Amino acid sequence: MNPNTRSTPHSTPRSTTRSTTTVPLGDRSYPIHISSGQTDTLGRSIRDAIPGISHAVVVMDESVVDPWGDQLCQSLVNGHSANDQAVRVSRIEIPSGESSKSIEQFDRLMQWMLRENSDRASVLIAVGGGVVGDLAGYAAASFTRGIRFVQVPTTLLAMVDSSVGGKTGINLPGAKNMVGAFWQPSLVLVDTDVLSTLDEKIFLSGLGEVVKYGVIEDAEFFAWLETNADALIARDPDALRHAIETSCQCKANVVGEDERESTGRRAILNYGHTFAHAIEATAGYGTLLHGEAVSIGMQMAARLALSLGMFDEASLVRQTELLRKCQLPIDYADADPAKMLPVMMKDKKVAHGKLKFVLPSRIGCVELVDGIDDDLVVAAIGQSTASR
Amino acid sequence: MNPNTRSTPHSTPRSTTRSTTTVPLGDRSYPIHISSGQTDTLGRSIRDAIPGISHAVVVMDESVVDPWGDQLCQSLVNGHSANDQAVRVSRIEIPSGESSKSIEQFDRLMQWMLRENSDRASVLIAVGGGVVGDLAGYAAASFTRGIRFVQVPTTLLAMVDSSVGGKTGINLPGAKNMVGAFWQPSLVLVDTDVLSTLDEKIFLSGLGEVVKYGVIEDAEFFAWLETNADALIARDPDALRHAIETSCQCKANVVGEDERESTGRRAILNYGHTFAHAIEATAGYGTLLHGEAVSIGMQMAARLALSLGMFDEASLVRQTELLRKCQLPIDYADADPAKMLPVMMKDKKVAHGKLKFVLPSRIGCVELVDGIDDDLVVAAIGQSTASR
Repeated sequence: MNPNTRSTPHSTPRSTTRSTTTVPLGDRSYPIHISSGQTDTLGRSIRDAIPGISHAVVVMDESVVDPWGDQLCQSLVNGHSANDQAVRVSRIEIPSGESSKSIEQFDRLMQWMLRENSDRASVLIAVGGGVVGDLAGYAAASFTRGIRFVQVPTTLLAMVDSSVGGKTGINLPGAKNMVGAFWQPSLVLVDTDVLSTLDEKIFLSGLGEVVKYGVIEDAEFFAWLETNADALIARDPDALRHAIETSCQCKANVVGEDERESTGRRAILNYGHTFAHAIEATAGYGTLLHGEAVSIGMQMAARLALSLGMFDEASLVRQTELLRKCQLPIDYADADPAKMLPVMMKDKKVAHGKLKFVLPSRIGCVELVDGIDDDLVVAAIGQSTASR
Repeated sequence: MNPNTRSTPHSTPRSTTRSTTTVPLGDRSYPIHISSGQTDTLGRSIRDAIPGISHAVVVMDESVVDPWGDQLCQSLVNGHSANDQAVRVSRIEIPSGESSKSIEQFDRLMQWMLRENSDRASVLIAVGGGVVGDLAGYAAASFTRGIRFVQVPTTLLAMVDSSVGGKTGINLPGAKNMVGAFWQPSLVLVDTDVLSTLDEKIFLSGLGEVVKYGVIEDAEFFAWLETNADALIARDPDALRHAIETSCQCKANVVGEDERESTGRRAILNYGHTFAHAIEATAGYGTLLHGEAVSIGMQMAARLALSLGMFDEASLVRQTELLRKCQLPIDYADADPAKMLPVMMKDKKVAHGKLKFVLPSRIGCVELVDGIDDDLVVAAIGQSTASR
């Protein structure tokens, strides 16, 4: 699925506000700049954040080269003052779609970077959605054992999730994100203007992850989303910046406390994801967008929590209604527990064959729960179709 | 070149001494156990160091499966006391030789690990020389974004150099170690007994790196080597353990101070290596063993230092004589400066197109020197053939 198919641009009133959130990771801390109407200054921001940059390796999703990739490259070349040195820009396009998160594209990228005389001082800049961010991030982690990189996410999903936190990687046949690295960017640059060219369905799917942050950590934000879902759907830049900033702050806090998913804290970000990954794998990648699968997966997780007596019906209804308002799917008719369970057992969160779920105890709070009876899991999946 | 071709075993008097050196890296610190005559207890050592290990992924150079790989796997399965849980062992063989440090072998390893139901709790164990250690280490760094691993080096070179320090990686066509990760093992297990099956030429080449430690950091060790070269060549286990331990201590100290080669400190370990890599690349990988190229490269570096007036003739003679005693090559008739210089410019230590050399100022002390005239570099290479 092409993450940035050009559709009719939404009218986004120009605004030049910029806010900054920091991911607190000691000497690997980095800022996320969130702006509207400043796409022509992205090159300047990169030069400011990485003084002395002399070679930029720009890896772009083919669907965002025109206009965002071109504009970024231009601003890297032009955006220097008299005492800056020139930046050499190498650029490459990656085919849109999940199939680019492959060892073949990784190999192609590595060999191309070598031909472009990249070295340890080169800076990789990823321009695209989660596919390009994950692939290019892993390339940055691996080239000469690691070079600096910058994320310029162009989908809502990448802005609020995949571009922040340092998870990079590619897929193996039948297993998502199985090969990769924790490698933090030096900088994340979000400008809501780039969402103006984003396909409607893909834009909406990003709201799935936004709602997730409300459920797992922030009841106040959840309530704000209930009130402002319409503004988000209309791509109002002020509403978007608030939603993106709050989401990034939540993710930054969690990542700062558990960068490598070692304490269990970071696992809360996977609310709905164990189900979602199994849905995506059994439906065939591409049938559902990731954010859509997450929406369905959050419903399954919430029902599982309800059946365990740890979550109440009223909260489930609130989640269901908010997802509906965001025009996200809340069930999946073809969900097949018999196929999904084995996939869940291959999830990276499994340790020693034991499955864990992130389940809500109330809006704004989730817990990591293990040792759950398979029957309850099957029932939570099955109700998805029954509730239609 | 097969790193462990079986030759007539050298007589190694059985000794059960074991010493331990620690690589000081905070919460990523790890021990290097150095023993003789204890190959049957390697599994026990791994269980002790990694309590609760339940799945071992053993990656072996095909040439050391019999007897060392088999013995290790056996001791993993058998070496448990009543209250240990059983360890599931998955094993795979890697073709001997530098060409296995490829993206193809990496891909093969990843897919095999997935089929073996490896997960984040699995522990990878690399049994072999530098090729297997580097490839398997990168696999450990990348599988589910990183799993624990253990190095069991079976060549002298790997024992004193590549198994310690966390540099892992594979080659790109024409460029060594261009793709990889800094990923520290949890444990390094050295037993000098495994050297009994090592080919003579390959064994001797490992002495090149041993001599290097004397020149860069430890004049006393250098003098010890001058006295004990014959015992090392005869593979005397006491002499070997002392040489390996001293080498590992030196490397551990340097790595502890500059894990990611960011301060310049770690660069001293590359004494002779800028020349050596260029010799290897232009001679065609496999023409010379790495340790042989390092020996020749150290001679070139020492001559360059002499021509700069920073090193004296008597010290150069001592280095030359010690390398000769170790039966290592000290020159290379086919060295071609016109071909070597462009290769040196692609070295990972180049930043912004500027070449740096690690050069000795006296036995036991080296310095990082940049801005050297190309003519002097060419002369240092050229004298290699002239001095024959």
